[in-house]
Amino acid sequence: MPTATPPVPPVAIVMGSRSDWPTMKKAAEALDALGVAYEAKVVSAHRTPQRLVEFSTTAQAVGYKVIIAGAGGAAHLPGMVASMTILPVLGVPVQSKALNGLDSLLSIVQMPGGVPVATLAIGEAGAKNAGLLAAQILAVSDAALAGRLAAFRTEQTDSVVESVED
Amino acid sequence: MPTATPPVPPVAIVMGSRSDWPTMKKAAEALDALGVAYEAKVVSAHRTPQRLVEFSTTAQAVGYKVIIAGAGGAAHLPGMVASMTILPVLGVPVQSKALNGLDSLLSIVQMPGGVPVATLAIGEAGAKNAGLLAAQILAVSDAALAGRLAAFRTEQTDSVVESVED
Amino acid sequence: MPTATPPVPPVAIVMGSRSDWPTMKKAAEALDALGVAYEAKVVSAHRTPQRLVEFSTTAQAVGYKVIIAGAGGAAHLPGMVASMTILPVLGVPVQSKALNGLDSLLSIVQMPGGVPVATLAIGEAGAKNAGLLAAQILAVSDAALAGRLAAFRTEQTDSVVESVED
Amino acid sequence: MPTATPPVPPVAIVMGSRSDWPTMKKAAEALDALGVAYEAKVVSAHRTPQRLVEFSTTAQAVGYKVIIAGAGGAAHLPGMVASMTILPVLGVPVQSKALNGLDSLLSIVQMPGGVPVATLAIGEAGAKNAGLLAAQILAVSDAALAGRLAAFRTEQTDSVVESVED
Amino acid sequence: MPTATPPVPPVAIVMGSRSDWPTMKKAAEALDALGVAYEAKVVSAHRTPQRLVEFSTTAQAVGYKVIIAGAGGAAHLPGMVASMTILPVLGVPVQSKALNGLDSLLSIVQMPGGVPVATLAIGEAGAKNAGLLAAQILAVSDAALAGRLAAFRTEQTDSVVESVED
Amino acid sequence: MPTATPPVPPVAIVMGSRSDWPTMKKAAEALDALGVAYEAKVVSAHRTPQRLVEFSTTAQAVGYKVIIAGAGGAAHLPGMVASMTILPVLGVPVQSKALNGLDSLLSIVQMPGGVPVATLAIGEAGAKNAGLLAAQILAVSDAALAGRLAAFRTEQTDSVVESVED
Amino acid sequence: MPTATPPVPPVAIVMGSRSDWPTMKKAAEALDALGVAYEAKVVSAHRTPQRLVEFSTTAQAVGYKVIIAGAGGAAHLPGMVASMTILPVLGVPVQSKALNGLDSLLSIVQMPGGVPVATLAIGEAGAKNAGLLAAQILAVSDAALAGRLAAFRTEQTDSVVESVED
Amino acid sequence: MPTATPPVPPVAIVMGSRSDWPTMKKAAEALDALGVAYEAKVVSAHRTPQRLVEFSTTAQAVGYKVIIAGAGGAAHLPGMVASMTILPVLGVPVQSKALNGLDSLLSIVQMPGGVPVATLAIGEAGAKNAGLLAAQILAVSDAALAGRLAAFRTEQTDSVVESVED
Repeated sequence: MPTATPPVPPVAIVMGSRSDWPTMKKAAEALDALGVAYEAKVVSAHRTPQRLVEFSTTAQAVGYKVIIAGAGGAAHLPGMVASMTILPVLGVPVQSKALNGLDSLLSIVQMPGGVPVATLAIGEAGAKNAGLLAAQILAVSDAALAGRLAAFRTEQTDSVVESVED
Repeated sequence: MPTATPPVPPVAIVMGSRSDWPTMKKAAEALDALGVAYEAKVVSAHRTPQRLVEFSTTAQAVGYKVIIAGAGGAAHLPGMVASMTILPVLGVPVQSKALNGLDSLLSIVQMPGGVPVATLAIGEAGAKNAGLLAAQILAVSDAALAGRLAAFRTEQTDSVVESVED
Repeated sequence: MPTATPPVPPVAIVMGSRSDWPTMKKAAEALDALGVAYEAKVVSAHRTPQRLVEFSTTAQAVGYKVIIAGAGGAAHLPGMVASMTILPVLGVPVQSKALNGLDSLLSIVQMPGGVPVATLAIGEAGAKNAGLLAAQILAVSDAALAGRLAAFRTEQTDSVVESVED
Repeated sequence: MPTATPPVPPVAIVMGSRSDWPTMKKAAEALDALGVAYEAKVVSAHRTPQRLVEFSTTAQAVGYKVIIAGAGGAAHLPGMVASMTILPVLGVPVQSKALNGLDSLLSIVQMPGGVPVATLAIGEAGAKNAGLLAAQILAVSDAALAGRLAAFRTEQTDSVVESVED
Repeated sequence: MPTATPPVPPVAIVMGSRSDWPTMKKAAEALDALGVAYEAKVVSAHRTPQRLVEFSTTAQAVGYKVIIAGAGGAAHLPGMVASMTILPVLGVPVQSKALNGLDSLLSIVQMPGGVPVATLAIGEAGAKNAGLLAAQILAVSDAALAGRLAAFRTEQTDSVVESVED
Repeated sequence: MPTATPPVPPVAIVMGSRSDWPTMKKAAEALDALGVAYEAKVVSAHRTPQRLVEFSTTAQAVGYKVIIAGAGGAAHLPGMVASMTILPVLGVPVQSKALNGLDSLLSIVQMPGGVPVATLAIGEAGAKNAGLLAAQILAVSDAALAGRLAAFRTEQTDSVVESVED
Repeated sequence: MPTATPPVPPVAIVMGSRSDWPTMKKAAEALDALGVAYEAKVVSAHRTPQRLVEFSTTAQAVGYKVIIAGAGGAAHLPGMVASMTILPVLGVPVQSKALNGLDSLLSIVQMPGGVPVATLAIGEAGAKNAGLLAAQILAVSDAALAGRLAAFRTEQTDSVVESVED
Repeated sequence: MPTATPPVPPVAIVMGSRSDWPTMKKAAEALDALGVAYEAKVVSAHRTPQRLVEFSTTAQAVGYKVIIAGAGGAAHLPGMVASMTILPVLGVPVQSKALNGLDSLLSIVQMPGGVPVATLAIGEAGAKNAGLLAAQILAVSDAALAGRLAAFRTEQTDSVVESVED
């Protein structure tokens, strides 16, 4: 189980506010289900900019492989992390109060050419998929994890209910 | 005229890309018209993050009083500057190609509680108004500038055409 | 404490309807926290237009320095106040029932060149930030307030929770 | 023909800027076609607020019966006129540059309860219809005009092309 | 009181469905408050098209002066009524379930040149304003009603609360 | 081949204005390609309401099997035709000037329960697909047409270019 | 009653998830009311792609005549089914959590030229109408069903409430 | 340089139509600049569904490591590929004609939980970033490529123009 137990886990989950955790924990659950280790921490682009810089500029050297970043509203965290690392950054638009996450989505996905953020769906589905995508990225060079992902997909297919009654 | 002619001008205009200048020069023109000095420079939140940090964290000590920041798409520049200074930051959403600046607007205006960005209209009207607003802010403690602003308003009112023919 | 205790406070908070107060009081709370005095009053652009004219045309002479104006729907209050004063006007889009404040936001931010409104986010976050921005504007010429703002920012950064568990 | 030829025409067409005239002249043309007199003038809510107040508060006493008001962006003119008169105010959202008139439309139509603006479509179709609607309103108490309107409708129906070929 | 008590009331309120009544009764209440008589009935453009034709083509001859029409979703009622009468038609976009009335608004307001619908705000505020606008239209030729409208406006202004406390 | 060659063609194409023909002819071309006869005519919901009623209420008796209706803006034609016939009505949202067809789309697709309109994409792609869908509907009971449709699909697949070079 | 009682029913209702059934059962109820047989099953485009291919490529041969497909979010099911069959495919956008079904609607309706999906309204009204439209399509070659549809329409018209009280 | 020169390149670029190539070649150019091999081919989800299935189900076994998929309108290609492989799929929303790519974006990004698509910005910036992100993903296990990416970032930063003049 080399992927799941290094001193530094391969995935970092960062979020702009503690209030994003109910959404972002879906990413953590997906990683748990696939046996991928991670660390989760609050890094606010706007309220802790120095912490943002420290985290982002050292993430690769520290040993992370993939970063998941969730934020809502004028969601600058994923793009700012991406600007300071060449690790893949996966952005999760957290559903906002007034505009339902459309602001979060556009703030994350519409990055200029040169600094990509891999953006997922708004809310919990997006967070879950960020966890899965992180695993898929790691599985490019981890055959055992690729096998677990294939098994996850098979189970998922099997669990889709076969029919409905009225 | 101490405010208008220090070695460090009171207003800094920053923009995410050289291509934003045709929009942002409207801010410069408004400041010119009111006799307010400024410096303009390209600071890309995503492509020059260290430059962003240096500019933002030192802006107050350097002697700037107000910062105008323009950007398009996932427009993180105004908000990130604002996160690292207590100077007033005025954000100009530059009109983007696909979504006409709606993405720029939402990325700039929907800041979380704690870090304000004073957002203006999309495009050239917004840039012009950023210049005017910077002057209005400086005029709070600069009676001469307040006088020039009042004169500007009077002229503006006078110039509105009195009638139209069909 | 000259800024905080003049007979006329430096900040006026106006709103289109008493029902906007639950949102706008976040601006008041931010000003309270920073020791900045203010007055709050209802001035409806549509239902009390004369009151609007009187307030706006005399605001500077009365001694206000910054005006915060909140309104929802076809939110004309901030822009109309701004058209009759050269004081900085900060606009807060109050969340509306049908369109969640998108109408309020566009009605406030899309001002024509010549009359700026410094627009904040929709709802309570925007109101809080209007209070902070008013303080930042006053701090341009008030070193003591600038110090309190810097302290506020430091506290805010410290209070961001350091980590989350799953 | 008493309605069509008084010293003060029954319809006033006001617009926020001379640049709105190419749109608003469609209202004038519709009134011309129906033999309804009008006056057109530029009244900017934001750049000539006193002119706005004078026009609006005296419009009824002067003898106007219906007001057509066109504006774009943060389009406050129709609603502000409506707040200062009990004459029917017809609002035309002029197509804006960045947001194609969606901002104009929402700024005009989303008026709070108590002050109505009769809003038409964005752009030239809306301006033409404002002219027609003004005539329909006057025709409520002008049988001759009602007759001309009925004839206009019949012609319009006849002119719809009967078929198309491929 | 000739306007308020004819055998056929001057205002007809039609709506696409009985479920629109909680919204549309605000129009009725506004008319009641101003002493303007009305009749309310359900006329569905889609489910009772013949009833729609009969109502619309005979409305003027029957003696109605103004028609208020409310509908939601693909809201065709106001526009279709307007296509078959030269009476002023006031359209109220009823708030819809999925799209919050944006679909209702666009379906009502974006009429082609030639057939105007005077569109009000989405939901109850729009319905109230439709009642007020109907009265304003009738007041063009009814001085007594104009007086009641002026009084209504004065009361409305007086009732705006003078100040707020925190 | 009774369905494909009656004196009355199986498909009627109606549109709100002659200006819709450049879009709607894509439906005609698709029907031509599949050997399905049709008639095209202008029927404006708003400017020729009686013609609309006559066409819609007699369409089934006349012998049409499927109706294609295209319109833009407040696009009421498809829904109003559908309200007066039980023939399948296929709605094509024509691209509008200000809102790019979003208004057309919502006005056509958001029909209330009870009166369906089969809505296609905005513009030419939608018109082409309306022609194809009409053929698919007729093919439910026309094996020869089903064969031609299957051949069309095979050709379409074959024509997709196999690769691209840079 | 040949249409209503074959071993394979004429209508297949497929949906992306069991959670879509509360919406999609409105289609089933409409078919029940008109005596049209159907089968309902869960076929997820994304989680059971092979099942999607099998269902779609064999649907015509199996004997289905019309397919109703409902899905939410990035709703690919209707379009993918349509790409693999020449049977008419009716798409129902299920209301999504964050964007209220606007994403579902655009994902279903904006199909490229060549592969039509007959799109209905968002949510339950759309599902009901999908059932009715399926019946209307079958009624093109089933006079008895056409009669039942005509009766359904008459009943629907009669049930619209005749008047409202305040 | 094992990753960059296998017989099967590590990156596959697929697109829904040859007309997407002017956008998608920006991905190819980014990969060229970083020395990452790729293959580009047209695979239409709607017009070549079998080709889609073959490509997607065999992509991992064939030896691809990352897939870039671009499509416009009801853009189903990225999501459908993702449903049939555990390789990371990067989705590029191609700018569409009527809705400027908002439909493409929502169709790609709003995937349900279980099947992620890493979505980039609308149009050419998104395509370029898809190329960069593919390289970043491969660089997780390819130190030489990581070095080239770091150099690319440094060059990009250096090339940002240092200042602007008015």
